[in-house]
Amino acid sequence: MTPISRRKIIVIKLTGGLFNKNEPRKVKNFSTILNAYHSNNKNKLQIILVIGGGKNAQVYISTAKKLGADQASLDEIGIEISRIHARLFIAALGDNAYPYPPLTLLEAVKAAETGKIVAIGGFQPGQSTNAVAALVAERLKASLFINATEVGGVYNKDPTKYPKATMLTKVTVTELGKILGKSKTDAGTYDLMDPLALKVIARSKIPTKIIRCNSKELRMALDGKIVGTLVGS
Amino acid sequence: MTPISRRKIIVIKLTGGLFNKNEPRKVKNFSTILNAYHSNNKNKLQIILVIGGGKNAQVYISTAKKLGADQASLDEIGIEISRIHARLFIAALGDNAYPYPPLTLLEAVKAAETGKIVAIGGFQPGQSTNAVAALVAERLKASLFINATEVGGVYNKDPTKYPKATMLTKVTVTELGKILGKSKTDAGTYDLMDPLALKVIARSKIPTKIIRCNSKELRMALDGKIVGTLVGS
Amino acid sequence: MTPISRRKIIVIKLTGGLFNKNEPRKVKNFSTILNAYHSNNKNKLQIILVIGGGKNAQVYISTAKKLGADQASLDEIGIEISRIHARLFIAALGDNAYPYPPLTLLEAVKAAETGKIVAIGGFQPGQSTNAVAALVAERLKASLFINATEVGGVYNKDPTKYPKATMLTKVTVTELGKILGKSKTDAGTYDLMDPLALKVIARSKIPTKIIRCNSKELRMALDGKIVGTLVGS
Amino acid sequence: MTPISRRKIIVIKLTGGLFNKNEPRKVKNFSTILNAYHSNNKNKLQIILVIGGGKNAQVYISTAKKLGADQASLDEIGIEISRIHARLFIAALGDNAYPYPPLTLLEAVKAAETGKIVAIGGFQPGQSTNAVAALVAERLKASLFINATEVGGVYNKDPTKYPKATMLTKVTVTELGKILGKSKTDAGTYDLMDPLALKVIARSKIPTKIIRCNSKELRMALDGKIVGTLVGS
Amino acid sequence: MTPISRRKIIVIKLTGGLFNKNEPRKVKNFSTILNAYHSNNKNKLQIILVIGGGKNAQVYISTAKKLGADQASLDEIGIEISRIHARLFIAALGDNAYPYPPLTLLEAVKAAETGKIVAIGGFQPGQSTNAVAALVAERLKASLFINATEVGGVYNKDPTKYPKATMLTKVTVTELGKILGKSKTDAGTYDLMDPLALKVIARSKIPTKIIRCNSKELRMALDGKIVGTLVGS
Amino acid sequence: MTPISRRKIIVIKLTGGLFNKNEPRKVKNFSTILNAYHSNNKNKLQIILVIGGGKNAQVYISTAKKLGADQASLDEIGIEISRIHARLFIAALGDNAYPYPPLTLLEAVKAAETGKIVAIGGFQPGQSTNAVAALVAERLKASLFINATEVGGVYNKDPTKYPKATMLTKVTVTELGKILGKSKTDAGTYDLMDPLALKVIARSKIPTKIIRCNSKELRMALDGKIVGTLVGS
Repeated sequence: MTPISRRKIIVIKLTGGLFNKNEPRKVKNFSTILNAYHSNNKNKLQIILVIGGGKNAQVYISTAKKLGADQASLDEIGIEISRIHARLFIAALGDNAYPYPPLTLLEAVKAAETGKIVAIGGFQPGQSTNAVAALVAERLKASLFINATEVGGVYNKDPTKYPKATMLTKVTVTELGKILGKSKTDAGTYDLMDPLALKVIARSKIPTKIIRCNSKELRMALDGKIVGTLVGS
Repeated sequence: MTPISRRKIIVIKLTGGLFNKNEPRKVKNFSTILNAYHSNNKNKLQIILVIGGGKNAQVYISTAKKLGADQASLDEIGIEISRIHARLFIAALGDNAYPYPPLTLLEAVKAAETGKIVAIGGFQPGQSTNAVAALVAERLKASLFINATEVGGVYNKDPTKYPKATMLTKVTVTELGKILGKSKTDAGTYDLMDPLALKVIARSKIPTKIIRCNSKELRMALDGKIVGTLVGS
Repeated sequence: MTPISRRKIIVIKLTGGLFNKNEPRKVKNFSTILNAYHSNNKNKLQIILVIGGGKNAQVYISTAKKLGADQASLDEIGIEISRIHARLFIAALGDNAYPYPPLTLLEAVKAAETGKIVAIGGFQPGQSTNAVAALVAERLKASLFINATEVGGVYNKDPTKYPKATMLTKVTVTELGKILGKSKTDAGTYDLMDPLALKVIARSKIPTKIIRCNSKELRMALDGKIVGTLVGS
Repeated sequence: MTPISRRKIIVIKLTGGLFNKNEPRKVKNFSTILNAYHSNNKNKLQIILVIGGGKNAQVYISTAKKLGADQASLDEIGIEISRIHARLFIAALGDNAYPYPPLTLLEAVKAAETGKIVAIGGFQPGQSTNAVAALVAERLKASLFINATEVGGVYNKDPTKYPKATMLTKVTVTELGKILGKSKTDAGTYDLMDPLALKVIARSKIPTKIIRCNSKELRMALDGKIVGTLVGS
Repeated sequence: MTPISRRKIIVIKLTGGLFNKNEPRKVKNFSTILNAYHSNNKNKLQIILVIGGGKNAQVYISTAKKLGADQASLDEIGIEISRIHARLFIAALGDNAYPYPPLTLLEAVKAAETGKIVAIGGFQPGQSTNAVAALVAERLKASLFINATEVGGVYNKDPTKYPKATMLTKVTVTELGKILGKSKTDAGTYDLMDPLALKVIARSKIPTKIIRCNSKELRMALDGKIVGTLVGS
Repeated sequence: MTPISRRKIIVIKLTGGLFNKNEPRKVKNFSTILNAYHSNNKNKLQIILVIGGGKNAQVYISTAKKLGADQASLDEIGIEISRIHARLFIAALGDNAYPYPPLTLLEAVKAAETGKIVAIGGFQPGQSTNAVAALVAERLKASLFINATEVGGVYNKDPTKYPKATMLTKVTVTELGKILGKSKTDAGTYDLMDPLALKVIARSKIPTKIIRCNSKELRMALDGKIVGTLVGS
């Protein structure tokens, strides 16, 4: 077995919103892109996939809340759903994927040793899947972190409120922190990055791209084309 | 800590159908009954809860199937959902419940050492949650296995097809095996027991009651009243 | 590391009877065949070995029964012996074998990632090693499941009772289920497949061959020659 | 075993600075207080202890940094040292302590089932031991979170820079967030709470007291007396 | 749950020779003694049982050796058998026993938290079950380590060679080390203690009694009567 | 993935003294040598590194002792420090190293499957890191065990006491045992090998070289040159 010494790691976070309708088409499309990219770059590049819980998670979290669950337990339930989403990607990716979603950073790092595409959900309470993606990127010294979101990039204002908000092509981590600080973090409507994800990106200077979660932009980001917002340090 | 030597164990399987609408009322009602029963019988009796995946599981299984997942992986996804259902019960039961759903028989047996109500989902592919409940009952030498189903008991004919089918008050395991053998096991419409559950009940002569999954019948079964179908050996 | 994408998986179940006399000759012979096959088909084919507990297990199970063990604990003891048998094969296979027997389906699937011969015993109570083999075959999408038994194939009648029973060259899963249903499942004398193994083979249409557990038939089965009974769907 | 239903949980975070000189006196003093408190409130109250890495951790982190370790690995090394600190407390607490520091939130929650004092270090990269303490407090529905720090409370200005800074007796989470936001989070000189700890305290409204890490203030805080800064919601 | 603070721990090592004939009588007798002792001393005393592999282990080790297993793997196989022996005791002890044999020192210490009789086999290669017993005694600060052997005590000469050898009533660890040093450690015929067990007993001054493995001497040792050889420090 | 069938394993034990000053230079030098050796012998040779706790461990052990820790817990603390030392090597070795120190023999063997340099600290109480290295060498059938010590080899007398002691170029295990038996094992001043390490080397006839822990001697040992003391069987 050749050690993976010179293999480039790309961490891709996909929004859990992909699964909102429990409808496999989008997962299939993304998997086709990722499988092609994996096969074309064999031994040179490895993709780590982190997938969110989205509205599917919200359904169970809402029920659990009514039953009296504490916030940490609610997070745990959301994590379980995000791991099921990771399993759906594993099914679609076939033999190119590591066969199970790792449950901890330690397991994720070990799974990455196989050279396969590793699909991960959440890790533990208090941590968004954005933070998971950032931590994995940091620990594996990834050369790129692509955050594929519903919003598509960083705007000068909250685009859901201000139709004239314009997307920024480049932003520093500090600026991003300020922009996000203004929006309500509870709402989850503009959840591009949480403070932990930002802190990790900042301290390790991880090259980060925020794009829209669709096939076209994912392909562009993988091909190194300009798309979405680049978060620089 | 007093060893749990003389504590009576009751294993209760609740159909995953309870969660079909992701609506907490039924879970709350059942938890109130179980908590009262637990508190009234402290140190004398312990409840082990096994919860199915129901239609919630089917939604994800169906998506995974379309994405090319093998049958064992489909089972694993169903198991994940049944464990989320167990977590919802843990939230509702509060401090009387063991704080996490055990993932294996070994973990379940260790969790039972605490004397708390243990809420379990599935264990592994190829095994229904009925079989999980039967195995746990066997390993813990349970004095009763209550299977709370949507059908409510064993009928002489499939009640979904024959409106005049009558419920049997008593049935031997062999007879039950024959009755179930006639129905299609794939369909899941009449899934009272699978072959593994039957085999375990038979070999260990576990006293088993099949009841309808509602508050009234659960209370009757716990109080030792005649309800549903008794599976004798 | 080349992903094992196009590697064909063959699951071989060997009867625990191989170890009845604790005499290494047969294990050595089988290992020589398997090592040769592994080396000749490198990167194209991977063997997963599942080994039963046989009479060695029965000795301990019988003692445990007299000491009051429940059926699930008896199964666990049998599983421990089957895992020791797997370790004996690992010793004989040398560096071509994964160094430990996996304890769960999850561990088995991860171990298979190494491309080595993986030797497995049982997984958990209520499950024969036949069922373990079928589940592993299903989860790894195996192209062939070879069940090497003492009986050598499926007969139209129980060959231990009817000397004139004739072996069938082909049988459907449904027919096999019926034939096995007639024999006593407790006795273990005609234990070709248990209900769970059958269910898994049926639902995933796993190509299955039942052969006699000797070098000649194993070689024939691996070489794709006609031998024993083919279980079709 | 009586379920711990009505047991009050108090989570105490102790600064890793306690161990700076590897000198056991302070640990001994704190343990005497905690043991007395544990014994006097048996079955009514349970203490969970979280201990930081302090300067001891910094020594190894600095070496690892020079050797090229990524930030996540540096965090992991700091966590290892904080766990050794937890072991030192376990030694001093004797049989009243759970015998090992839990490695994850799940393990911590299970360990708390024993009713003993549980001593914990860090959990995973990207997370301060303050955040660990807040998460544990949230998951166990603690009635109080005492953060025993070197600074002793929240000041209106950074007390290390402004000698005339005055300590606040009460502060809201939002105000605390703003005060902390002004100081450099990298420096670690004024590290009362990190963003994750704040977020958890805020979302679960955990009653929190920030005190100076000495015997007198710890005793006052445990006795419900006014001391340090109360963080309210 | 009352913390087990003042509970006295007694570690008993039983020779694997008990199981040589796979005949349950002796196990039953010992379990009756241990169960009675456990029940009579509830909350004051806890028994930890360590059981060897004996000749049963030798059978498998011999086969594995012929198949080319390395010494560490041979040890692992012996450990597996000793764990099955522990399971047989668990079956006989019933609800007074912790339900599984712990696999590591960490697991053993955690299992001891339940207050139940914990039955353990081996831990890892290179370590006799005597050493396991000594380590557990050390970690749990046991007040007594009873080593129930086939020889029955320490003799001034090897009793299997010198019929006139006399048993010593008292011996220091240093003297025992010298006596054992003269006998062949490979043979296993006079295996009272291995160097690791001796080292642990010496460094922690664990009060140790070497007795004959029969009901009478075990009862005498538990009752504090003079029997076998006392190993003092 | 090519099975590692014909890969030669070399186990290198490095004294924990390397880290006494928490100064990275020596670790860097050794890592450069090991990385070069790894890269030059790819697929033919694999290095397993075992690293001791040294004086860093002693600092914490001494504190824990004063706090009342038992000897086994002291060992555990020493093991934790040795694992941090292993992590420092992992940082310095970069992608050629397995990403985490294995915690048990089983994990070490599995980690070795990756073909990478595996850096290990201690395993469990009662066991020196010399013994860990010997056990790993035995289990992986290593072709060479290099023990890089502060003393540099085996002397006819204790060199710290007798300035005229001469180093032996060759010694049998039995002779080494006798020489070590004379020195005080508690003191740790002449701790070349402990009894367990010796026993393992003897029983498995592992070719062993004791050298001085510096770059020059390590290079010579790896290059097969005569250096230090050869321990033969």
